[in-house]
Amino acid sequence: MRVADLIRRKRDGGELAADEIASLVGAYTRGEVPDYQMSAWLMAVVCRGISRAEIAALTDAMLHSGEVLDLSDLPGRKVDKHSTGGVGDKTSLVIAPIVAAGGLYVPMISGRGLGHTGGTLDKLQSIPGFNVDLSLAEFRRVLGACGCALIGQTAEIAPADKKLYALRDVTGTVESPGLICSSIMSKKLAEGIDGLVLDVKVGSGAFMKTEEEAAHLAELMVETGARMGKRVVALLTDMDQPLGRAVGNSLEVIEACEVLGGRGPADLRELCLELAGWMFELGGKVGSLPEGKELAAGLITSGKAKDKFREIIRLQGGDAGVVDAFERLPRAAHTFEVVSGEDGFVVGIECEQMGLASLALGGGRAKKEDAIDPAVGLTVHKRIGDTVRKGEALCALHYNDAARLADARRLVETAYRVGPEAPAAKPLVRSVIGA
Amino acid sequence: MRVADLIRRKRDGGELAADEIASLVGAYTRGEVPDYQMSAWLMAVVCRGISRAEIAALTDAMLHSGEVLDLSDLPGRKVDKHSTGGVGDKTSLVIAPIVAAGGLYVPMISGRGLGHTGGTLDKLQSIPGFNVDLSLAEFRRVLGACGCALIGQTAEIAPADKKLYALRDVTGTVESPGLICSSIMSKKLAEGIDGLVLDVKVGSGAFMKTEEEAAHLAELMVETGARMGKRVVALLTDMDQPLGRAVGNSLEVIEACEVLGGRGPADLRELCLELAGWMFELGGKVGSLPEGKELAAGLITSGKAKDKFREIIRLQGGDAGVVDAFERLPRAAHTFEVVSGEDGFVVGIECEQMGLASLALGGGRAKKEDAIDPAVGLTVHKRIGDTVRKGEALCALHYNDAARLADARRLVETAYRVGPEAPAAKPLVRSVIGA
Repeated sequence: MRVADLIRRKRDGGELAADEIASLVGAYTRGEVPDYQMSAWLMAVVCRGISRAEIAALTDAMLHSGEVLDLSDLPGRKVDKHSTGGVGDKTSLVIAPIVAAGGLYVPMISGRGLGHTGGTLDKLQSIPGFNVDLSLAEFRRVLGACGCALIGQTAEIAPADKKLYALRDVTGTVESPGLICSSIMSKKLAEGIDGLVLDVKVGSGAFMKTEEEAAHLAELMVETGARMGKRVVALLTDMDQPLGRAVGNSLEVIEACEVLGGRGPADLRELCLELAGWMFELGGKVGSLPEGKELAAGLITSGKAKDKFREIIRLQGGDAGVVDAFERLPRAAHTFEVVSGEDGFVVGIECEQMGLASLALGGGRAKKEDAIDPAVGLTVHKRIGDTVRKGEALCALHYNDAARLADARRLVETAYRVGPEAPAAKPLVRSVIGA
Repeated sequence: MRVADLIRRKRDGGELAADEIASLVGAYTRGEVPDYQMSAWLMAVVCRGISRAEIAALTDAMLHSGEVLDLSDLPGRKVDKHSTGGVGDKTSLVIAPIVAAGGLYVPMISGRGLGHTGGTLDKLQSIPGFNVDLSLAEFRRVLGACGCALIGQTAEIAPADKKLYALRDVTGTVESPGLICSSIMSKKLAEGIDGLVLDVKVGSGAFMKTEEEAAHLAELMVETGARMGKRVVALLTDMDQPLGRAVGNSLEVIEACEVLGGRGPADLRELCLELAGWMFELGGKVGSLPEGKELAAGLITSGKAKDKFREIIRLQGGDAGVVDAFERLPRAAHTFEVVSGEDGFVVGIECEQMGLASLALGGGRAKKEDAIDPAVGLTVHKRIGDTVRKGEALCALHYNDAARLADARRLVETAYRVGPEAPAAKPLVRSVIGA
């Protein structure tokens, strides 16, 4: 293999064979191909595109660069959910317990917050004692014991993706649907799952700003899953405003517990039932989505889902008492209310700014090595379509460090748009691909 | 400056400001920007293009990354010629002495053979003792003494280009007219010249296979020169077959001496007069190209050009006797004649294969560290349009190592196409840009 030839072929719009991609990725992971050649190839992919067959080959190569879990000894189907990232998206904390309580295995390997979006790992770590850094052996033990385990990417899982992702991050080569697809799918398929539900976020708070882009990525992932023998369903869901009312790590854990307790914001509850319903369907627990949603709703009502969340927290070393006593979670010392300057309707929210506001308060990382303040974040009082009066609170900012308030306040104030007429309502689930 | 932002801007088809390009190139040359970011940026340039203003900024940044010669103390205009590379192109060896004999300064910094093409430095080094590795101080001294000096790129000249070129070579980012233009122009403008004649080769033995590509590159270079206050003229010249009859280092020195002696192949002599004529015009020695060609022809007839070549060789430590006694140059031990398989006309020659044949005999480098055999090469007996009889010699292969013959023979045999009808003749100089 002459790497420069493979780069030139991609540069000229050509296609690489599966074994060429496998050689390239393998040699790169072993350190035999230098970063500067790989980044040139990645940029050629971003500029010239990557075929479906190439995406499958890249996914496969990254998947097999590390350990692929074999969970066949566990008696039951394994399913997972993955979100492309949004603001206030705490669905994983709700649906993982629901689906495990419903008798499926949920081996969930999650990520950290990225840019303006939150990350499941950061949220879980606001629960005192919760350990997301289990070894694969411990992961397997917890999964076997309670049907669910929630950890971060380990060194054994898809190391090629880890190395490639770090390179893409600094070389302007993140924004390729094909590369995003193979990065996500290689990690998820390494979990040894039978089925996967993808929550592809679309809107001002998502990485994909348009439905067209989101649908394209969703199709790529569904097809890549199918090529690799897995059932994958992708939901395109709204991210034009934060999901639910809470943004920020411990605030989101609280809201997730409220949904598990049968309360919480309607949009969040609805999306959790939808996603869990699909997971039950893919896992063969039910024959249709409506039955799946009904099963999920029943597990909330019966309290079994909440019991399961306590069990998961306990098995991963955390304080399960937080589920019923929110005061055991970190709370910010101060609150500031952003108020409306006029009467009218909320006609739009720049959702990315809301995520950046939480980050500005210390709820996320500007640099990889930054520490997170788990207590800070936002409570979204007013959502799109709500009426508002001049002087009425739109959003509360929970903060500890007064020096961080000004930036966050400005971001939230300029994120809201209030107008005289109510905007047309948009559905939460825009479309379903791969069903 | 955030490098990733500059990469993304170029990836998305945007334009960088001159100071951004200067910062990027400067930081890269100092080692502050890693290769993997630079190669991603270069690939984005190849895929998305680079504007005229960006080319000028890149040229300027590379030019000023090292020493720019100030030759203003030498009493006279300084001119140079640069070729984009061909097979059998020994014009530099002819015109440098002619133009210096005509009273202009020719500070010529040349390159090595690249791929299938020959290099002026390699040819000069077949002259026993000839030193192409002068320091810039020695270069200036020789130039002052005889009006011409011929050396290779030193570490002081455009180090940014040197580092970038090495990176481009292994990352599939050579083939960009904008990058080629700025690489050539930054080195040539560092010579402290007033005018430059570019010989842009086009055809099967050139890097630019079509007139369109060659004209585009020529226009870019002429415009870049103009932006930097230099007069630049570009000739698009034929490279559908080797120039002259000799291909290979000492064989080409012999042929250059023959032209300086008033003999030699007509096409080579014609192109040398054309290029030297333009150099005289740009240097203000004459008012028109015809006068310049006449001046050049006169310097050959009078023997002054040949005298100048002897003087240059002597001042650079070489055996000036070779000019009149070719047996003092390396000669290959064996000759093999490739003959025609049929009667007819030579209708085409795959010129790149002819260059590769010389390389296969040891006349060039497959890898950078390879040693060159100065004696080997080709003598082209039959050129396009010549009649040929079955069994008649098309081309002689001069070789020392019998093990290298088979590959070279196959390349030459398959390079020639013989047909029943004479092809239409094409002009040697296809067009002139910037005149």
